[in-house]
Amino acid sequence: MDFSGSHILSIDQFNRSDIEKLFSVADSLEPYSSKIKVTRVLEGAILGSMFFEPSTRTRISFGASFNLLGGNVREITEVGSSSLAKGESLIDTAKVLSGYSDIIVMRHPDEGSVQKFAEASRVPVVNGGDGANEHPSQALLDLYTIEKELSQNKKSIDGLRIALVGDLKYGRAVHSLCKILSLYSDITIKLISPEALKLPVKLAEQLTKANIEVIETENLEEGISEVDIIYVTRIQEERFKDKKDAIKYKGLMTLNQSIYTANCEPNTVIMHPLPRDSRNDANELDSDLYENPNLAIFRQADNGVVVRMALFALVLGVENQINKFSKPVNWKINRDL
Amino acid sequence: MDFSGSHILSIDQFNRSDIEKLFSVADSLEPYSSKIKVTRVLEGAILGSMFFEPSTRTRISFGASFNLLGGNVREITEVGSSSLAKGESLIDTAKVLSGYSDIIVMRHPDEGSVQKFAEASRVPVVNGGDGANEHPSQALLDLYTIEKELSQNKKSIDGLRIALVGDLKYGRAVHSLCKILSLYSDITIKLISPEALKLPVKLAEQLTKANIEVIETENLEEGISEVDIIYVTRIQEERFKDKKDAIKYKGLMTLNQSIYTANCEPNTVIMHPLPRDSRNDANELDSDLYENPNLAIFRQADNGVVVRMALFALVLGVENQINKFSKPVNWKINRDL
Amino acid sequence: MDFSGSHILSIDQFNRSDIEKLFSVADSLEPYSSKIKVTRVLEGAILGSMFFEPSTRTRISFGASFNLLGGNVREITEVGSSSLAKGESLIDTAKVLSGYSDIIVMRHPDEGSVQKFAEASRVPVVNGGDGANEHPSQALLDLYTIEKELSQNKKSIDGLRIALVGDLKYGRAVHSLCKILSLYSDITIKLISPEALKLPVKLAEQLTKANIEVIETENLEEGISEVDIIYVTRIQEERFKDKKDAIKYKGLMTLNQSIYTANCEPNTVIMHPLPRDSRNDANELDSDLYENPNLAIFRQADNGVVVRMALFALVLGVENQINKFSKPVNWKINRDL
Repeated sequence: MDFSGSHILSIDQFNRSDIEKLFSVADSLEPYSSKIKVTRVLEGAILGSMFFEPSTRTRISFGASFNLLGGNVREITEVGSSSLAKGESLIDTAKVLSGYSDIIVMRHPDEGSVQKFAEASRVPVVNGGDGANEHPSQALLDLYTIEKELSQNKKSIDGLRIALVGDLKYGRAVHSLCKILSLYSDITIKLISPEALKLPVKLAEQLTKANIEVIETENLEEGISEVDIIYVTRIQEERFKDKKDAIKYKGLMTLNQSIYTANCEPNTVIMHPLPRDSRNDANELDSDLYENPNLAIFRQADNGVVVRMALFALVLGVENQINKFSKPVNWKINRDL
Repeated sequence: MDFSGSHILSIDQFNRSDIEKLFSVADSLEPYSSKIKVTRVLEGAILGSMFFEPSTRTRISFGASFNLLGGNVREITEVGSSSLAKGESLIDTAKVLSGYSDIIVMRHPDEGSVQKFAEASRVPVVNGGDGANEHPSQALLDLYTIEKELSQNKKSIDGLRIALVGDLKYGRAVHSLCKILSLYSDITIKLISPEALKLPVKLAEQLTKANIEVIETENLEEGISEVDIIYVTRIQEERFKDKKDAIKYKGLMTLNQSIYTANCEPNTVIMHPLPRDSRNDANELDSDLYENPNLAIFRQADNGVVVRMALFALVLGVENQINKFSKPVNWKINRDL
Repeated sequence: MDFSGSHILSIDQFNRSDIEKLFSVADSLEPYSSKIKVTRVLEGAILGSMFFEPSTRTRISFGASFNLLGGNVREITEVGSSSLAKGESLIDTAKVLSGYSDIIVMRHPDEGSVQKFAEASRVPVVNGGDGANEHPSQALLDLYTIEKELSQNKKSIDGLRIALVGDLKYGRAVHSLCKILSLYSDITIKLISPEALKLPVKLAEQLTKANIEVIETENLEEGISEVDIIYVTRIQEERFKDKKDAIKYKGLMTLNQSIYTANCEPNTVIMHPLPRDSRNDANELDSDLYENPNLAIFRQADNGVVVRMALFALVLGVENQINKFSKPVNWKINRDL
């Protein structure tokens, strides 16, 4: 893929060399995300941040990433956007709003809507999540985290054994991650979910076609043994037609320290796309894991910043100019209070 | 008018020489809006963006314009602002919030409210729309668009023949545009609306007094013949006391390509203040006009950026310093994907 | 206190020398808040502005202050934050969002919540108000205002005689101000409120222990005589369990010019944390006081900017570098239209 000027809509756009390029840029941005240096390379650029569905972490992560490159952010957070409420088509909205931005990130509850918007947009559009469909930056930061965590144990993504736990039916993060793992060799995916929340059949078939070993089970303890990564997800209550159905599946699978100790290989890494549901009736990832050094969930969230910065830098074609516009940080860094 | 330090509340403040000055500054800002250059002239300045009524395009357009001059934007988008809900007077709100900004743009549902706010404000206030009353930056960008589009055909605003179509009763964009056209000579305005949505009598009388030839008709096809510009508007449903009344008038007048071809002179320009209502029951401007090169509605929206930048630059007195603080653009421009 | 890297959660953290240091930095920032100079010392820094309760002035004041130091602001204004709605714990929210910011300001309706958030945050957190509990920056700007206003009359905080008027039960600004005044000597506080809205007994006892002379009265005219400052507050309707109870106390105590003239010493300063309730049934501070030069309420609001800038500068350790990154202001200052 030629990143420069491209929309980033789906994980299907990426091949292995694209991902390597992206991760290499992300690595180079680490001094900026950790505030060793500041860059102003995008000074004067505007990110249109358009969230037609509530979001906190994804919206702030994209916005902060753009600020860290020196750019400004203009935001639409109104769920019932005023223009759409007045009968404006998504195409008109795209034509107009793309005149006010250099790049757009968009989240929308309807599958395919971001692609439709991008077709009409006059600037590149990054998909920040369209319904249960795609959320490519999440899959990319997940894979980036997998690589970073595995490299601590001298392992690489080829040969990965990963357990996906929870709501595999509606979780778009899981869907995108499955697709991206198909680019690698010798992958084993263990799918652990209640029967009703299984990975869509079509997607499971794609995995098999891509020579991924797929093992399905409803047994958490069995599923999390003999893997490198456990990737836990939240029951996506908001995507169920009937909320009562969602409640049935909450709390069925809880990973805590004792289950971990009893079943996992040493240094099995725990991931979660967050937010995790910490209410008593759900609690898919118990808070007694806070002290477990293999709990990578906050490192994973942090990785979102460099991965999103790298996406912006590549799409806007500034990946080789970042250091040229760098400055020292004036303030004291207090990240580890 | 001495722009510097002035509130911009009404189109009545402007004479022809003011408009020429504004448009000349707007022209000079084109390299910045099209991202050939970046300027930092307002680095450190703060725009207080206060929208007490939902808005997407106007709010983002003003904010982006201020960013393009190098300034920061602080926003209030809560419709039921918390301070007002606690019983604060508009005067107090103005006194306090003007202490946090260098210039304020404000939209409010009540006619006259922005003027009242401005009287108490300690910094200049730009009216971003007060009810059905005024929306001066819209009229200015409309006129700027008319001039640009006409100049393609070697015409000027003097001598303009324009058709105003749709909800001429509640459309504040139309009201402000009528007023501003009164400054020019040899103007013909054709008012095309259902009887119940006619231009307010007082305003029609003002036009006649200003030597504008006014022709009223309920017949769209007749009205759009022999004009240079067709300016279509949306039925302003939100301003009707009874929404059921609004529905009666939706869809009565739809301009599409075949009506255009059958009735319009060559190169008749189509404008709309947007958002246009593209739902089947309204559809005042059909999507089959997308391919018509005379559809100027997105150029019109784009023009909002240079016109608003020019307003900010003139009111803050930096119109002659913009180039002094300019820099090259580092990123690749992808406006025409 | 070592400001650098500290959370600012409670007024209890401050001793007199901390306050002197803060006020001295605030004084040095006056040329920046009044736009004589611009500083870029925090260029590249990000403030996470997280308001889980509606707020206009406090939110905008913090954001503008950070912008004036050169930093960017990312905002959460959704009252029902999407992550929390999905069952995320405040600890997870803090861990994640602190990865996107260099410093956080947070308002939350629950007492103690900001402290809990700060414990999990990886960057310093400034309490922007947690329920009826604390609002330290308000108390600091109030004290800064008291000092500034008194110095006009050659008085200092030691020896202050102040009347606190209105809802002393729920008003967190009053609670924090009482605490901070305990650091000074020879203070007299006159508490003027309806019986049901008296200052909490525990707090009144603390004042007495701190050698403050406390006088309680329900009589406004008696209470405001022989004081240097009258600090009026709004009935905090939103904190009453039953709104009907709030209505009973509204309008009981109204300070206007004739009451002021009849009872106050010359140059008695009038303060209010704002917003004041100007509706007829409340009107705790009549608008006929606008012309009274001792009405300090807008100077008080303005002082919020330098005090908040000083807090940010000290916590981020840049208080000695501000002038090093200063630039002239390019635009015309129109603060006194």
